[in-house]
Amino acid sequence: MQIRKAQASDGPAILEIILPVIREGATYSLDPNMSEVAALAYWMNAEKDTFVAAENDDIVGTYFIRPNQGGGGGHVCNCGYMTRASAAGRGVARKMCEHSLVHAASRGYRAMQFNLVVGTNERAIRLWQSMGFATVGRLPEAFKHREFGYVDALVMYRLLA
Amino acid sequence: MQIRKAQASDGPAILEIILPVIREGATYSLDPNMSEVAALAYWMNAEKDTFVAAENDDIVGTYFIRPNQGGGGGHVCNCGYMTRASAAGRGVARKMCEHSLVHAASRGYRAMQFNLVVGTNERAIRLWQSMGFATVGRLPEAFKHREFGYVDALVMYRLLA
Repeated sequence: MQIRKAQASDGPAILEIILPVIREGATYSLDPNMSEVAALAYWMNAEKDTFVAAENDDIVGTYFIRPNQGGGGGHVCNCGYMTRASAAGRGVARKMCEHSLVHAASRGYRAMQFNLVVGTNERAIRLWQSMGFATVGRLPEAFKHREFGYVDALVMYRLLA
Repeated sequence: MQIRKAQASDGPAILEIILPVIREGATYSLDPNMSEVAALAYWMNAEKDTFVAAENDDIVGTYFIRPNQGGGGGHVCNCGYMTRASAAGRGVARKMCEHSLVHAASRGYRAMQFNLVVGTNERAIRLWQSMGFATVGRLPEAFKHREFGYVDALVMYRLLA
């Protein structure tokens, strides 16, 4: 698996990955009904660096990295990761997260923060914990899950270096 | 003191309030050197409702309210408050926060979240605590203070209703 900067020509493959996740409305605080144009513009834009994970010619995952805040908060980055459903369970997210941690440090970031990890997304929580992220906050009923209703969300964080 | 929706003609007074706070770089994660145009565009834009607190003809404070996240996170709002330096210590921020809590509930929000309360901003932390906000998270070294260097930041939160 090779992880590289996304190009404009990766747009269709990225959409194939991110649209089902957005439509499901279970893990990202994005409008499940957002347009394809809006979805791609959210994932790839001037404020983010976007990467893809490629196996041969197949794009199996994608992630972005951006400063989580401006000014005095600009040394903390934020990332989002999505794996193609058909490639789930093969460590794609872990490899992308490892890549993002190295990339973040190389860009001078000092910490990485996930602002809203949906409490029912246990697989992601276990993965981030195993990669050194601590749960530094719990937001009561901060996410309305399409299936489970209002559920807590976690703030997860790790220093880099 | 009357709190009302900000109008475009309030722009100069709002800038008089927010620019010194932004330039100080001690409480908001905004670029201290941002332009006046960028500062006003941050405070008043299509994604936010912006209010001013007026005493007679003087604008003594301003705040905004917006959804903190999209999609399943859209029922949690976020606010920013700034008081004119010459009006400090007179409860302007408290009155604006009270107004925002009522306004938020009337708009159907279920919770209010402050994403990054700088740990050295003890006055604000005490105020939010007294208004029912809990510290639900602590972000290690998440803010680079112009005077104190890297300091922790708090995530503060309260349910409405």
